[in-house]
Amino acid sequence: MARWAPDTRQRLRSAALELFAERGFQATTVPEIVERAGVTRRTFFRHFSDKREVFFGDDEIPALAARMLAEAPAGVPPLTLVAAGLRTLAAERFEPQRTEMRAARRVIEAEPALRERDLRKQADLHAAVEAGFVARGEDPLVAETVAGITVTWVQTALRAWLADPAAAPLTEHLDAALERMRVALAP
Amino acid sequence: MARWAPDTRQRLRSAALELFAERGFQATTVPEIVERAGVTRRTFFRHFSDKREVFFGDDEIPALAARMLAEAPAGVPPLTLVAAGLRTLAAERFEPQRTEMRAARRVIEAEPALRERDLRKQADLHAAVEAGFVARGEDPLVAETVAGITVTWVQTALRAWLADPAAAPLTEHLDAALERMRVALAP
Repeated sequence: MARWAPDTRQRLRSAALELFAERGFQATTVPEIVERAGVTRRTFFRHFSDKREVFFGDDEIPALAARMLAEAPAGVPPLTLVAAGLRTLAAERFEPQRTEMRAARRVIEAEPALRERDLRKQADLHAAVEAGFVARGEDPLVAETVAGITVTWVQTALRAWLADPAAAPLTEHLDAALERMRVALAP
Repeated sequence: MARWAPDTRQRLRSAALELFAERGFQATTVPEIVERAGVTRRTFFRHFSDKREVFFGDDEIPALAARMLAEAPAGVPPLTLVAAGLRTLAAERFEPQRTEMRAARRVIEAEPALRERDLRKQADLHAAVEAGFVARGEDPLVAETVAGITVTWVQTALRAWLADPAAAPLTEHLDAALERMRVALAP
């Protein structure tokens, strides 16, 4: 990403999301997106392989999760590590993108092919977290458990945050999502 | 399923799993499967649409989960309902199929196309549980949380059970998997 001006990428995303919201995902073409963004077709394809890719700029999240787990000091309890990682992602990746993510969410929910891809992203995050904890020496079943909890934690927090009319910060929704899991699992 | 003799279906599954284990999934053909099972090609296609379907005889699990949630009395806490549902599935569906499931698991893990389908099954169970709790009047975020917990619970319990050299009953692995989630989420 560092090779291209981030504002161009951002402009393309915003233009695409506007058009998807106006006309639907299927009916929107790449020429229409580049026209609205005021860039060339070639520029579009430097940033995205197709219009579906516009939604999945956060494909690097599994890699970020893997790096955080690899770099964290030994002996930190898994939940503490996951919480710290999610707070960092919330501040650096999600919070600045709330408007675009809200628009993207609506398009994804209306489009089965995109929902499929969204599931694949969740599975990639699950795999990265699981592998990261295995590499830290956790029991494989504990690693899989923590990975499942992480995905549910992120998904439910993001959903609440994107739907929140009061626009409370994502970190508050992360706290609430963790509490919901604890309540659901209480004996 | 009631229309066809269950032992034919079972024989086809066993033959297919033997062949997949011997030759690999890709290299095994439907004619080889029917020859080993001693049935006609036509019989195969009455039970399965293709060789991949052989793995996914439990496709009815999301529908079973939906029915259990719809029929359960009001006011039962979500975790109690999920636990009861999983115990029923363990006794009626999984425990009698342990040998086949162990064989199937090894083939699925070696075959990306089957892992993809396995993820789809998990997503279907997630959707069924979520919708079932929403229909029972739960808060949608609680429903999604419980669905996420259910999938992690089933997956980690099945994995431990299928790998267990002592062959302890699945119900014991369900208890252990629940405890792992509670420990992972402990403050």
